[in-house]
Amino acid sequence: MFLKNTWYVACTPDEIDGKPLGRQVCGEKIVFFRGPDGKVAATEDFCPHRGAPLSLGFMREGRLVCGYHGLEMGTDGKCAGMPGQRVGGFPGLRTFPVIERYGFIWVWTGEAELADPAKLHPLEWAESSDWAYGGGLYHINCDYRLMIDNLMDLTHETYVHASSIGQTEIEESAPSTKIEGESVVTSRFMENVMPPPFWASALRGNNLDGDVPCDRWQICRFTPPSHVLIEVGVAHAGKGGYHADPAHKVSSIVVDFITPETETSIWYFWGMARNFRPQDEALTAMIREGQGKIFGEDLEMLEAQQRNLLANPTRRILKLNIDAGGVKSREMIDRLLEQEKRPEAA
Amino acid sequence: MFLKNTWYVACTPDEIDGKPLGRQVCGEKIVFFRGPDGKVAATEDFCPHRGAPLSLGFMREGRLVCGYHGLEMGTDGKCAGMPGQRVGGFPGLRTFPVIERYGFIWVWTGEAELADPAKLHPLEWAESSDWAYGGGLYHINCDYRLMIDNLMDLTHETYVHASSIGQTEIEESAPSTKIEGESVVTSRFMENVMPPPFWASALRGNNLDGDVPCDRWQICRFTPPSHVLIEVGVAHAGKGGYHADPAHKVSSIVVDFITPETETSIWYFWGMARNFRPQDEALTAMIREGQGKIFGEDLEMLEAQQRNLLANPTRRILKLNIDAGGVKSREMIDRLLEQEKRPEAA
Amino acid sequence: MFLKNTWYVACTPDEIDGKPLGRQVCGEKIVFFRGPDGKVAATEDFCPHRGAPLSLGFMREGRLVCGYHGLEMGTDGKCAGMPGQRVGGFPGLRTFPVIERYGFIWVWTGEAELADPAKLHPLEWAESSDWAYGGGLYHINCDYRLMIDNLMDLTHETYVHASSIGQTEIEESAPSTKIEGESVVTSRFMENVMPPPFWASALRGNNLDGDVPCDRWQICRFTPPSHVLIEVGVAHAGKGGYHADPAHKVSSIVVDFITPETETSIWYFWGMARNFRPQDEALTAMIREGQGKIFGEDLEMLEAQQRNLLANPTRRILKLNIDAGGVKSREMIDRLLEQEKRPEAA
Repeated sequence: MFLKNTWYVACTPDEIDGKPLGRQVCGEKIVFFRGPDGKVAATEDFCPHRGAPLSLGFMREGRLVCGYHGLEMGTDGKCAGMPGQRVGGFPGLRTFPVIERYGFIWVWTGEAELADPAKLHPLEWAESSDWAYGGGLYHINCDYRLMIDNLMDLTHETYVHASSIGQTEIEESAPSTKIEGESVVTSRFMENVMPPPFWASALRGNNLDGDVPCDRWQICRFTPPSHVLIEVGVAHAGKGGYHADPAHKVSSIVVDFITPETETSIWYFWGMARNFRPQDEALTAMIREGQGKIFGEDLEMLEAQQRNLLANPTRRILKLNIDAGGVKSREMIDRLLEQEKRPEAA
Repeated sequence: MFLKNTWYVACTPDEIDGKPLGRQVCGEKIVFFRGPDGKVAATEDFCPHRGAPLSLGFMREGRLVCGYHGLEMGTDGKCAGMPGQRVGGFPGLRTFPVIERYGFIWVWTGEAELADPAKLHPLEWAESSDWAYGGGLYHINCDYRLMIDNLMDLTHETYVHASSIGQTEIEESAPSTKIEGESVVTSRFMENVMPPPFWASALRGNNLDGDVPCDRWQICRFTPPSHVLIEVGVAHAGKGGYHADPAHKVSSIVVDFITPETETSIWYFWGMARNFRPQDEALTAMIREGQGKIFGEDLEMLEAQQRNLLANPTRRILKLNIDAGGVKSREMIDRLLEQEKRPEAA
Repeated sequence: MFLKNTWYVACTPDEIDGKPLGRQVCGEKIVFFRGPDGKVAATEDFCPHRGAPLSLGFMREGRLVCGYHGLEMGTDGKCAGMPGQRVGGFPGLRTFPVIERYGFIWVWTGEAELADPAKLHPLEWAESSDWAYGGGLYHINCDYRLMIDNLMDLTHETYVHASSIGQTEIEESAPSTKIEGESVVTSRFMENVMPPPFWASALRGNNLDGDVPCDRWQICRFTPPSHVLIEVGVAHAGKGGYHADPAHKVSSIVVDFITPETETSIWYFWGMARNFRPQDEALTAMIREGQGKIFGEDLEMLEAQQRNLLANPTRRILKLNIDAGGVKSREMIDRLLEQEKRPEAA
């Protein structure tokens, strides 16, 4: 069960650079490509001629050409031509609203007439030259909500990411969860702790001492349908923590866009936005590589958890205080799902 | 749905050279082997003793010996012996009529009493020393009819085989389709076109200039159950095309025997028969290698098309003029399927 | 259908050396680990917190720590702690009776209150310094009863293991099968035969001539649920065969513990116990390597047989005299299964 009348990240611009991309989103097999004006388009990935996936084709002058017999698909889902054929009466394809913004292609798999660019989640950092962003994409065989749970309870860092960002002080510091409008916010603050390897390295990357006690924070913010943006950082101890002067801290935003592929698989767009040394591309690459390794550690656990849950469908699991972020996020999703089902009641 | 009372290619002689071969044809798991007289036999691939596949066994004096406990199976499907056992009362296996001819082993998976060697499709070139043949075998996960469609509409060459036999003139030349008795024939003629790389090479292989305008032809002939033989060739332009003197042309027959394995998978026996330089084995090998690469390009497309069709079972696809060959072939198959179901009505 | 109120081999001690092991036995997903006292424990492999497999975790001071969020599981299936949590009310896990003995960990997946260490199959050789043991583990996709059949009818050695322990004299010697209490015993004796390669090598390994006629014996003993212990050996011909003086023979016990994983897959613990040169570890390693190769030859046949039987569910297979060992073993299993279903009738 996933929300459909909402924007999900479908892909990044480099994935449709000069070629179409086939990707399943919310159960819909979709082909993404750029039209003649360079604008992104999305249609069903099914050639009306013989049913071949259009994504196996190629781009020619802004038209998507089927790689089997040459049917040309326009961005409006209508056949734009085919050698030796009159295509006027050809059946069209469903198109999906898409937006390119913030360095991502976003798709709306619900009712097209409800698609509203204003409903796109704002990402100020993505349009500011004070910030740099680097990230990647993982395919994971799990329900998208298991990944939300994962990100809204960073206790797991101590175990899953013990060698990089985990430290026992995380689980010793109780998180607090609250609702802020359409967001769920779970915060955790640790005072006077030694920074774990990833943060020690980040401090040094920002020309700060990495071997001294710090105050550390994690502010996880869920917004529907399945975005989790996490403010993370460390400041030298006693300098004000989260509110410390930039001269004493290093901080960033962990970016997690979780796009359901099927009920039990996701496209996981992860990354990090930072506002220190934003022009330093080598630093961006180094952070991305480090983050990629760390976030790859979640895969095995999430897929094993998913298999275990599927094998035990009637079994209840716990909702502890540390799980409040995930629990509240799921409640918000459930409420919105209900609204989608009965819009008149909303 | 496939025809059963008909001959399909099961394998080539080298596949049963001194050993049994297990292969599923039309849903039947069959073991093929040579009896004591060298004649091919086919029985169910199931040892009556403990159910092991007989195809994992070995040949001993014309008997197929089960590799598990040594039961010996005769060509008549009756147990011919087993160490220390009286085998008279052992249950027998179903046998399948088989014929070895034209360089292939043919099998009849329908009612044995209807099997008639006279119904085998004649292949004159296969018994003439003026002709040479080379070919291969691919396993493809698609309905056999998708491969018939593919071969009866060569428009796809322009897209799927762009670097070898494709050229835009193909799709610019409308094909014509007609019924000739028990055959469907789709023909396409192109005049005064430059030969694409495969044909330029073939011309040179026949000591003809490969860089001059040519007339090109493709005459696709479907015969039930699922054979497609295609006369293809090029002649130097203005020399009479298809009817040109052999001194001015190079031609051959593309041979396609499509054997259903299951409803959605096939054994695809492809090859080329030619009547120029038939003794030149190096040329045969070169052509086979080139054809193997080209025909391998269809695999990904056909399997992706099959997956797309299975995922969209209610969706209609188009039947354009270029699809007439496949459409008429399917109509002929459907008519014969109906006859098989109700033989008394025929 | 497998017996549940019985002991199966779950694993060997090295598999839980300092770490937990997840293994499915009789359909139950179980995690095996050592408690603080070093004693083996077994619980469901499902963390009560969020459903992650506990077997992905690690050991800390005799507690199994979940690798996702740190829940600590005790050997009693009760949560022993979790950072920042009061765990008193946490739901517990089912535990499974386990015994470590004879070099194996044994598990009881049936009713715990019926678990009785006295019901463990005695293995005198495993506790005697006059004997040495070496073995291994294979995972095979077949019903456990197909492996019992395999081991109770060694006729297959002539075919499956032709290059090592097979010889035609096996199938020429009729076996005899009898019931001895709770055992099925199938015996085969061959007189004055040349030893096949494995036994020739074993004779030489015991400082005996390996190229002279021998008497050979195989005494297969099935005991429920699925143990097959086979006395095998050769003696120089005319020295008394099975009863010959140790100076003239070489003998050992083939050990087969077959643990059902699912209805159609097993964990197959194979090995060999011998009472000659028991201190010679190089010999143990050499025998294990040889046996491993030979026993690996059964895998392909058993998995192919299983697939063939599943594809032909209504088909009957034969029960010849050579199959009597397997047939009687299955009858014993069926009788015990009936008793498990209706204990009051027993």
